[in-house]
Amino acid sequence: MLSIEEYQNLIQSAVEKEIVPREPYELYEPIHYTLSMGGKRLRPLLTLLTCDIFDGDIQQAISPALGLETFHNFTLLHDDIMDKAPIRRGFPTVYKKWDANRAILSGDTMMVMAYDCILHSPKDLLFDIFTVFNKLGKEVCEGQQYDMNFETKPTVSLDEYLKMIHLKTAVLLGGSMQVGAIIARTTASNTRLIYEFGESVGMAFQLQDDLLDAFGIEDVFGKKNGGDIQANKKTFLYLKALELASEKQKYELQKLYSVHYENDETKVMRVLEIFQQLNIEMETKKLMDCYYSKAMKTLEKIELSHEKKAVLIKLADTLMKRAN
Amino acid sequence: MLSIEEYQNLIQSAVEKEIVPREPYELYEPIHYTLSMGGKRLRPLLTLLTCDIFDGDIQQAISPALGLETFHNFTLLHDDIMDKAPIRRGFPTVYKKWDANRAILSGDTMMVMAYDCILHSPKDLLFDIFTVFNKLGKEVCEGQQYDMNFETKPTVSLDEYLKMIHLKTAVLLGGSMQVGAIIARTTASNTRLIYEFGESVGMAFQLQDDLLDAFGIEDVFGKKNGGDIQANKKTFLYLKALELASEKQKYELQKLYSVHYENDETKVMRVLEIFQQLNIEMETKKLMDCYYSKAMKTLEKIELSHEKKAVLIKLADTLMKRAN
Repeated sequence: MLSIEEYQNLIQSAVEKEIVPREPYELYEPIHYTLSMGGKRLRPLLTLLTCDIFDGDIQQAISPALGLETFHNFTLLHDDIMDKAPIRRGFPTVYKKWDANRAILSGDTMMVMAYDCILHSPKDLLFDIFTVFNKLGKEVCEGQQYDMNFETKPTVSLDEYLKMIHLKTAVLLGGSMQVGAIIARTTASNTRLIYEFGESVGMAFQLQDDLLDAFGIEDVFGKKNGGDIQANKKTFLYLKALELASEKQKYELQKLYSVHYENDETKVMRVLEIFQQLNIEMETKKLMDCYYSKAMKTLEKIELSHEKKAVLIKLADTLMKRAN
Repeated sequence: MLSIEEYQNLIQSAVEKEIVPREPYELYEPIHYTLSMGGKRLRPLLTLLTCDIFDGDIQQAISPALGLETFHNFTLLHDDIMDKAPIRRGFPTVYKKWDANRAILSGDTMMVMAYDCILHSPKDLLFDIFTVFNKLGKEVCEGQQYDMNFETKPTVSLDEYLKMIHLKTAVLLGGSMQVGAIIARTTASNTRLIYEFGESVGMAFQLQDDLLDAFGIEDVFGKKNGGDIQANKKTFLYLKALELASEKQKYELQKLYSVHYENDETKVMRVLEIFQQLNIEMETKKLMDCYYSKAMKTLEKIELSHEKKAVLIKLADTLMKRAN
């Protein structure tokens, strides 16, 4: 098996091959900008690693892996317009740097480019891989719609929130592993189980992301703590806090989440205080542990050597403790 | 062979099958609205008719045909945001009826739905059909970008304009026929030639569209004459007029195209007068005839019976004289 760094190098050179000058410049410039921004390249890494773990030919997985990364980047590009986000990975978002129209159209083109990468999967697997990819594509859009709905929905339940992050994040992580497994031509059972493994790890990963936004070490991801709080985002932390809060705390939280000022540090500090009073960090970690355990139980059922399972466990550990 | 009406019925029932309630409602409502709006359903018609003409199994062509229609509708949905168009086919556009965010996201989902329809092509043809579809997808986006560029570009040449409509309109009409030919498993030569035939007819079709916008019978398409003129759109008519105009006419035209007022009928009337003085209608028809002749020359090379060629000629005639 290759090392994480070796997978990353394979992905990096595949990304670089995509970045060739094309006309019209105005269309491809934002695409190349987005692809060059970096990011964790987590989804293609999952595809390559999974393919390798099941003894597949990882050369065959490079193009579909790039397709998953391109698709993910397309969703970020369009999400940033919808969320009016000015910064992504420390750089101005496409919609801010250019305008909404170029962001819409270059996003659309990126989606076609993603499909073009997927097309370069082994021919006999095309139907299976496209089936997975289309399912993921629809689910990610559905997740983003639920996320947008939450902005104006007065009450959101924890279950609704978990369903949203499942669609918006977890299925794509699971799907990236599933594609790797399909290319490796492992058993149908292994393919299904590795999807479920990725799905559970993906849930924990997103909860970790919510947690880091509130309690993380600043500057690791080029963003300030409390961004979600400032934006009144109904994350797991906020919804769990509402569930556990006294009437007085609940009233205060809802009041704090009903206003929006730029750089409102007093608000962030006060919300974090309430989160701490309610042990929200621990509550979130508890749920992350549930998903982690679920992932481990799924892993037990996968037909793989202990050494290979250890690689997947290490991966899950790394994803869940990203700040360390 | 089936009649045009029979093809249309097949398409209509395929469209209706797509319109089933799905969650989240906020995402699928604009999609169903768009698909229910009607329109000419030209692209799927071309796919079914071409498949039938080459003795293919048109049942196999229905899903990919619907994919092409869904893709086309997705591009309109996003174009309407970019062009800030309030009305499409006599109805409020998605972006006006709801908002830009829902238009972006439901458009993205429609693109995935289009790919999902394409996926239901015969399995052994998937690679070929996706290859065509991805090429078309990218070209249509490129065409839209050129179209947007023209808004701010001080001078646009006729060649640049023709390249733009080629990408934005003609390739998709050609491609719709090509997909039909692929599904019919006709020869590679026939497949290439029918694409070229559709491409030429598509060019004439778009020029006809430009012409109808200026000189058409009002209300046939639910829109008023002179919409392109009001919007200062650099169509073939305008660009050809600039080429043929005297210095004085050129100055006046450019001045008229530098302002924008709602319902500026005086401007439309004056521009149409200049177009008439310069015989722009005739000039446009001349170019349409060139593309028509090109289509007919291509048709000669296709291996088909006279009867079937006659069907294609009738189709081209209908498309070019839509207002009659």
